[in-house]
Amino acid sequence: MKTVSAYATPAAKAPFERIEIERRDLNPEDVLIKIAFAGICHSDIHTGRGEWGEVNYPLVPGHEIAGTVEEVGSGVKKYQVGDRVGVGCMVSSCGTCANCKAGEEQFCVEGNVGTYAGMLDGKPTDGGYSTHIVVDENYVLGIPESIELDAAAPLLCAGITLYSPLNHWQAGPGKKVAIVGMGGLGHLGVQIAHAMGAEVTVLSQTLSKKEDGEKFGADHYFATSDDDTWDKLEGHFDLIINTVSASLPMAKYLSLLKTRGALVSVGAPSEPLEVPAFSLIGGAKIWAGSMIGGIPETQEMLDFCAEHGIGAQIETISADQIDEAWDRVVDSDVRYRFVIDNSTI
Amino acid sequence: MKTVSAYATPAAKAPFERIEIERRDLNPEDVLIKIAFAGICHSDIHTGRGEWGEVNYPLVPGHEIAGTVEEVGSGVKKYQVGDRVGVGCMVSSCGTCANCKAGEEQFCVEGNVGTYAGMLDGKPTDGGYSTHIVVDENYVLGIPESIELDAAAPLLCAGITLYSPLNHWQAGPGKKVAIVGMGGLGHLGVQIAHAMGAEVTVLSQTLSKKEDGEKFGADHYFATSDDDTWDKLEGHFDLIINTVSASLPMAKYLSLLKTRGALVSVGAPSEPLEVPAFSLIGGAKIWAGSMIGGIPETQEMLDFCAEHGIGAQIETISADQIDEAWDRVVDSDVRYRFVIDNSTI
Repeated sequence: MKTVSAYATPAAKAPFERIEIERRDLNPEDVLIKIAFAGICHSDIHTGRGEWGEVNYPLVPGHEIAGTVEEVGSGVKKYQVGDRVGVGCMVSSCGTCANCKAGEEQFCVEGNVGTYAGMLDGKPTDGGYSTHIVVDENYVLGIPESIELDAAAPLLCAGITLYSPLNHWQAGPGKKVAIVGMGGLGHLGVQIAHAMGAEVTVLSQTLSKKEDGEKFGADHYFATSDDDTWDKLEGHFDLIINTVSASLPMAKYLSLLKTRGALVSVGAPSEPLEVPAFSLIGGAKIWAGSMIGGIPETQEMLDFCAEHGIGAQIETISADQIDEAWDRVVDSDVRYRFVIDNSTI
Repeated sequence: MKTVSAYATPAAKAPFERIEIERRDLNPEDVLIKIAFAGICHSDIHTGRGEWGEVNYPLVPGHEIAGTVEEVGSGVKKYQVGDRVGVGCMVSSCGTCANCKAGEEQFCVEGNVGTYAGMLDGKPTDGGYSTHIVVDENYVLGIPESIELDAAAPLLCAGITLYSPLNHWQAGPGKKVAIVGMGGLGHLGVQIAHAMGAEVTVLSQTLSKKEDGEKFGADHYFATSDDDTWDKLEGHFDLIINTVSASLPMAKYLSLLKTRGALVSVGAPSEPLEVPAFSLIGGAKIWAGSMIGGIPETQEMLDFCAEHGIGAQIETISADQIDEAWDRVVDSDVRYRFVIDNSTI
């Protein structure tokens, strides 16, 4: 066992505290990672504040982890000491169900083990707001040299959350793709869809981030608060990725799709959405969901982002600023992702 | 102009009357069809009773038409006098939009012309509850010899409504497909999905039509009124086709899908459905719509049904029984489709 430092929330809505936690001795397939940066994801806040159900405290969040390998177990094949690596939302899964075998461990039928607030070998897992983490190499990703570790960290959750639906629903040349919402998820979606060769439109409440959107590769930028937007873009898109967790007027968004177009939700409100079935039937339209991505697709995403120079636009904070950063995330006051400098833990 | 007999509803909710209507002189591409049988579709009733908006009266419904060619225009290439032919839900479309060019005239961006209650050359169209109809050959389907005309008529709407989503979402060997509802649509869906090679399950409110379902090719038959059904079938299906127009508990139905499975609605209630986005996000599931099919796919469906011995199970009525038949359709008291013997008009 290795005692390491971490930042934990001791109770729902209590301020963060620096604590000591234990990381397990390395099993043959384990990798000990020295964490350089950990992104702050909105789901850290929902989980940490108990908004998604009961969790064990103290809770060490963090599932956007980037760092370097400090030690490897006797059977590790993929990584060596010094390698630049990342960890995303899961650290284990059954490995034997049809989904795991298909590389879609995010849908493991036994339930995968979350990087934090999961249970592994009878103990709650602790996440990336920590100096070190021990992870089975099969859930560790390689981060290519050309992406800085701080800009890479948010790719491990936010990046794959956008890459997977854009990949699965075939964003690419000749396709008109809309990204709804220009936040932590959306700003990566714009970059990825653009790099895939699609014609990219941002749909945001206002035009306040238009300049940024265009910098990220958006060809068009429309305000959803402007009624004209809905008329202009009717029947326009092959694919719409909705990153927004608010309760959207679904019939209006579906009206923006072409025949057989797809709207994919990666953000969701807690209450059900009201959707007229006729919005789908007329035009044989599709409403689908998507949730992060599997390990092979996450590696593919990192390689793709490296090849195309894509990273998160970040604001780096020290560990003692986590409480403030969480409040600012809730207020949508970040452009576009907070990353903790884990050397300050 | 040719004066022919028809049955028309003279006003919303008024009883049918026998009237005379005019069919246009043949244009070069037109075919004059002597109608042998016309199916009664639930949408005839919604339209005729004014439940889907204002229509012109007297209204001659009917878009499940089977008969023989009696005369052809000077430029007709596909059909000859005596050919067995059918007409479905549309008799014209722009022919030049992307959807028409792709053979998806049902989604013509200019709006296609309905077989009845549509407008063509400034006049309302009259449908199949009539002795004859004149239709552009491009909207006429060939009915193979091996299907009886009476059993073929309902294929022109009900058949293609089920064939198109089963085809598009790839029902076939190795796929587990559920058909929700065992009515006019569902009983064809079971036959088609079975012929495509899928493992077919019927989900019906009760087991009252189980024997019929199995005769049509269902491998399994479950009552949705039985709570155990939902536990047994969780995560079970690749594809669910919902033929029911009632307001279903969508989250429960989506829970029956495998990862990346699709639920396709072809029936819809008038009020919006409540769908938790998380029902789609967990499992990257799909909810889609589908609406009849294009002309090429409708021909493909007829050829497929002929090859596999598929037809509607029908109850044949004379024209003076239309009012009674409509009431029975509303009461779901038909196994499984009424067909008018048009020689009685």
